[in-house]
Amino acid sequence: MRKANTREMSHKALVVLSGGQDSTTCLYWALKHFDSVTSITFDYGQRHRIELDAARKVAGVSGVEHAVLPIDTFAVLGGNALTGDEVVDTVATEGQLPNTFVPGRNLIFLTFAAAYAYQRGIRDLVAGVCQTDYSGYPDCRQNTVEALQVAINLGMETQIRIHTPLMWMTKAETVLFAKEVGALEALAWSHTCYNGEVPPCENCPACELRAKGFVEAGLPDPLVSRFTQ
Amino acid sequence: MRKANTREMSHKALVVLSGGQDSTTCLYWALKHFDSVTSITFDYGQRHRIELDAARKVAGVSGVEHAVLPIDTFAVLGGNALTGDEVVDTVATEGQLPNTFVPGRNLIFLTFAAAYAYQRGIRDLVAGVCQTDYSGYPDCRQNTVEALQVAINLGMETQIRIHTPLMWMTKAETVLFAKEVGALEALAWSHTCYNGEVPPCENCPACELRAKGFVEAGLPDPLVSRFTQ
Repeated sequence: MRKANTREMSHKALVVLSGGQDSTTCLYWALKHFDSVTSITFDYGQRHRIELDAARKVAGVSGVEHAVLPIDTFAVLGGNALTGDEVVDTVATEGQLPNTFVPGRNLIFLTFAAAYAYQRGIRDLVAGVCQTDYSGYPDCRQNTVEALQVAINLGMETQIRIHTPLMWMTKAETVLFAKEVGALEALAWSHTCYNGEVPPCENCPACELRAKGFVEAGLPDPLVSRFTQ
Repeated sequence: MRKANTREMSHKALVVLSGGQDSTTCLYWALKHFDSVTSITFDYGQRHRIELDAARKVAGVSGVEHAVLPIDTFAVLGGNALTGDEVVDTVATEGQLPNTFVPGRNLIFLTFAAAYAYQRGIRDLVAGVCQTDYSGYPDCRQNTVEALQVAINLGMETQIRIHTPLMWMTKAETVLFAKEVGALEALAWSHTCYNGEVPPCENCPACELRAKGFVEAGLPDPLVSRFTQ
C-alpha cells in the first residue's frame, strides 16, 4: 500500500526516451510495470536529428504519449563531438573522457524530466542508463543517479524514484530483456548508429556494440532485419 | 598545498550571476578569495529581462568576464509565474510552493554552471543562494546544494566545490557583508523588483525584503539612492 501524499499521485511513469535501443527497451519495461506511461525526448541539438524521429516512431508504435522538450544550452556550451559541427579538442577533455562526452548531459536530462514529472504528479522516472556498458559516461552510473535522485527530491520537495532497469546488464542481457518485455518489434525503429545512418553503418562503435549484443543473445536485430529481408 | 590534478587547474572561480543583490555580493566575495573570477548568467526566458541587463552592468562595473547562456526549456515547461506570460495555477503547484517556483531551476543552473566550469578547468562555483530567506524555494537550501555537488562530481568525474557564502545570513547580514567585500557600489546596478520596474516599485515582496535588509543594517540602498539623490 502506498502512503498518502499531499499531491494527487497516479501510478504513472515517465520514460526518458532517446530513441535508442536501451530507452526503447525501458519504455516496454515501464508498460509492464505501471498503470500508464508517458515519454519525453530532449531536442538538445544532437548531431543526429534522426534520433528524434526514432523516438517519435517508437512512441507511436508503443502507443505511448510523447513530448519533445528543447534544450538549446548544450549547443552553446559546445566543445564536444555530439552537438558540435566538428570534433573539438579542448584542454578540459583531452585524454580524459570520450569526445562524445557532454558534461552533465544525463544530470540535466533527468532533472528536466523530474521537473516535467513534478508538474504532472508523476513520481516514477525511467531511464535506460547502464553502468556495465557505460562507455565512459560517468553520469550513466549507479552512484551518480542515486546522488541526483537525492538532490532532485530535496530540491523539488518531492519523492521521485529514478528506475534504471538496465543498469547492471550486459548488452546481450538487455537484448534478452527486450524480448522478455516485448520490445523487440519496436527495436526495429530504434536508432543507434553514431554516424546517423539508416540503414545503420554497422562499423561505428555504437553499431558494433549493438551487433555484439544481438549475436551473444542469439537473436537477429530487428533493425538490421528491416533492411535485409 | 593543493593536490595535483590530472587536468590543469587555475585558482579561478565561476560566479552564477543573476544580476540580483545576493549574486552581486557573491561576485565581490569571490574577487576577494580567488586569483581570478568569471561569471555566468542564464537567459531562461525570465519575465524580467532587465535582470540580464543588470547582470551585464554588474559584471562590467566589477571588471569580471561574463557569459550569458540560453536555456529555452523552462519556458516550454511553463506553468509558473516567473517565465509564463501570466500566472498559471496547476494541480501540481496549488497550495504547495510559491507560484514563482520553477521546479529544479537552481539544480539546472548549477549543473550547467558546473559543465561550463568543467570545460574551463574551474572547480570553484559560487552561488548566492540563501536558506535563511529562501522564500520557499527548496533548491536554495544547504542540503540540496550539498547533494547536487555530490551528483555533479560523480557525474562529471570532477571535484567542483559550490560555495554559498550567504547561505546562513539574514538579509541585513548580507547587506553588511556586501559592505565588507566592497560590493555596495555595484549594488546600485543590481536588480531585485519582482515587477521589473526601474526605479524599483518598492511595494513587491522582493523590494520589501531588500529594503528591510538595508534598514536593519543601517545603510542606504545604493539602488534607491541612484534615483533619489
